[in-house]
Amino acid sequence: MLFTNAHIATLQNNGSYGLIADGVIVTEGTQIAWVGPAADIPDTFCDAPTHDLEGRLATPALIDCHTHVVFGGNRAAEFELRLNGASYQEVARAGGGIVSTVKATRAATEDALLADALTRVDAIIAEGVTCIEVKSGYGLDHETELKMLRVARRIATVRPIEVRTSFLGAHAVPAEFEGKPDAYIDDICIPALRAAHAEGLVDAVDGFCEGIAFDTRQIARVFDLAKELGLPVKLHAEQLSNIGGTQLAAAYDALSADHVEYATDADAAALAASGTVATILPGAYYTLRETQSPPLQSFRNHGVPMALATDCNPGSSPLTSPLLTMNMACTLFRMTPLEALLGMTAHAAKALGLRDRGRIVVGARADLCVWDAAHPAELPYRIGFNPLHTRIFGGSL
Amino acid sequence: MLFTNAHIATLQNNGSYGLIADGVIVTEGTQIAWVGPAADIPDTFCDAPTHDLEGRLATPALIDCHTHVVFGGNRAAEFELRLNGASYQEVARAGGGIVSTVKATRAATEDALLADALTRVDAIIAEGVTCIEVKSGYGLDHETELKMLRVARRIATVRPIEVRTSFLGAHAVPAEFEGKPDAYIDDICIPALRAAHAEGLVDAVDGFCEGIAFDTRQIARVFDLAKELGLPVKLHAEQLSNIGGTQLAAAYDALSADHVEYATDADAAALAASGTVATILPGAYYTLRETQSPPLQSFRNHGVPMALATDCNPGSSPLTSPLLTMNMACTLFRMTPLEALLGMTAHAAKALGLRDRGRIVVGARADLCVWDAAHPAELPYRIGFNPLHTRIFGGSL
Ligand SMILES: [Zn+2]
Ligand SMILES: [Zn+2]
Repeated sequence: MLFTNAHIATLQNNGSYGLIADGVIVTEGTQIAWVGPAADIPDTFCDAPTHDLEGRLATPALIDCHTHVVFGGNRAAEFELRLNGASYQEVARAGGGIVSTVKATRAATEDALLADALTRVDAIIAEGVTCIEVKSGYGLDHETELKMLRVARRIATVRPIEVRTSFLGAHAVPAEFEGKPDAYIDDICIPALRAAHAEGLVDAVDGFCEGIAFDTRQIARVFDLAKELGLPVKLHAEQLSNIGGTQLAAAYDALSADHVEYATDADAAALAASGTVATILPGAYYTLRETQSPPLQSFRNHGVPMALATDCNPGSSPLTSPLLTMNMACTLFRMTPLEALLGMTAHAAKALGLRDRGRIVVGARADLCVWDAAHPAELPYRIGFNPLHTRIFGGSL
Repeated sequence: MLFTNAHIATLQNNGSYGLIADGVIVTEGTQIAWVGPAADIPDTFCDAPTHDLEGRLATPALIDCHTHVVFGGNRAAEFELRLNGASYQEVARAGGGIVSTVKATRAATEDALLADALTRVDAIIAEGVTCIEVKSGYGLDHETELKMLRVARRIATVRPIEVRTSFLGAHAVPAEFEGKPDAYIDDICIPALRAAHAEGLVDAVDGFCEGIAFDTRQIARVFDLAKELGLPVKLHAEQLSNIGGTQLAAAYDALSADHVEYATDADAAALAASGTVATILPGAYYTLRETQSPPLQSFRNHGVPMALATDCNPGSSPLTSPLLTMNMACTLFRMTPLEALLGMTAHAAKALGLRDRGRIVVGARADLCVWDAAHPAELPYRIGFNPLHTRIFGGSL
């Protein structure tokens, strides 16, 4: 297939959009076979069927590399309670917080969880996402952690999107293990990870390293098992404080360290040395009214690739708009529009360990977005507007 | 028409949602003829055709009471320049700022302005808006101010939405009157307002009272003409500093004082005395990274109704999502979900001087939204998600 008359942002390298004004993208099967200026197209492709993009902007399709889209219930009541002045204790007494999501997720059937997740996935797809990461972590018991991952896998069977799963048993300590985080790691997290892996449900292993969750020693035990199983790791690190998660992630050659508001320049250096991506999650920063911005300039100085993701979850980031995520990264963190687009494409792919997508280059998957826009900077500039014209998934419209 | 099986947020008074769990709304023509619990429905209505809302949430339709959706061009390039570190002077040298929008708006045909505005209006309609205010103010010359208002009027002829126009000639001093704001008021603003009014293009008169725009004395001259013409007034006031705009608005019994980040408790008292609405515009606060929040507690204490609007414009608020506006008001300003919903319905209607809408009561216009939501707090809770199921405009689906 020849996609002609395109204004292409190839993102072939990180220093520029790699714009081609009057460009053509040739796809063969699920791959990109050629990309370049219309004037240079080789004769061999001239007989392929043509799809005229009418001068629209084409970019790599978006990738949402950090989400918790599978969960039961919602936290609107808690959102309202807080805004009506309820204290943390009052919210907890009313059954709020992650406890309420764990309860609803445990109670829900697989089908119900899937139907609910699809409402969110559809919103994310509608803005041009072709690959989404989905975590467990609201089960916190053996069976529900596996159930969440099965639901995540099923998303890809009913929607044109690729799903990458992360086992996040070490997300929080459930009520039945209160004060016994090590016992939770031993009795639930580690056996559940083994079982989920045996069932083919796990693409990566994640954790939440924070004072209110698990310390580096506990996360390290989960990561050791990941290593034994040959699974890559990633980590929620330095979101609310600095307790060494980023350094731990780097020591385990993690795919990504996520949130990282409280990371230091030394942490950035460690990420650079291990080739770990810093995944920036402005939705949670915005919702929690955090004031500590992630150290973007340190990441730039050390050459740490920055990914961007919605962090879609019911508590700290009930956000289903990758385009708004890009706007927030620019507005709140002063990310440049080019960095924001790389963060949702090439660098998000890297954060998932995927080398075959995120840029418009020969041999990459033909996952593309066509936008009613004249320039890529329009994507993060607009707020709450979706200029997507066409999404191409593995060469298919 | 009988809309049955609805979870209704009537907003019949300001203290609660006025929820009816198993409710029915009866419409006759463009009006609401009855609303109440299914059990209480009078026999007279039982033969009307029925539309089953299947337990969904019904609210008054949304109203966007402050927008600048008619303009030429966009400011994505300027957005990117700033994020790449360009100084204010460099942006100005590159033709940025309001000057670029004025230039593009003057150059555009009516048809081109309309087509461009409709992309934004369609996004706003898609989230349940049935009434939108649209301002002039990017012409700053006689002909273009009228052209903008003609385009605003045409929106309602091609989309199922009601448009209320505001003449905003006193938006900025154009380059050709630099340093001569009084001459601009005399030579352009006042004659253009007379002409626009004569052509039936003006529902209200607006101004921008700010150090970088017009002072209270200049605005007062425009307001005096509005009074002479029998037109209500409203004002961009106290957005970046306090120079007395809110008090001026109150003195002229304005419909609304808008932005009002820098309003004082005394200003709130003045608004209460004149029955003027405070219109809160979180999109501009967010985009400009303002840190001064509007004095919500003062508005509450004095009983000033608070409206909410997108302020959709190409510079300080390229925002086309009323639902995100509600989320921003809650997240950034700690507005309650009830206040946010009132701000986009009943209080927005008041800010436009419309008494016949914004609440689900007998005799009101049958402008309704039906949402895939269990509770109204879900509307501001979610970020970048549109749960609208059906929009009803004057009784029509
Ligand atoms: Zn997360
Ligand atoms: Zn405005």
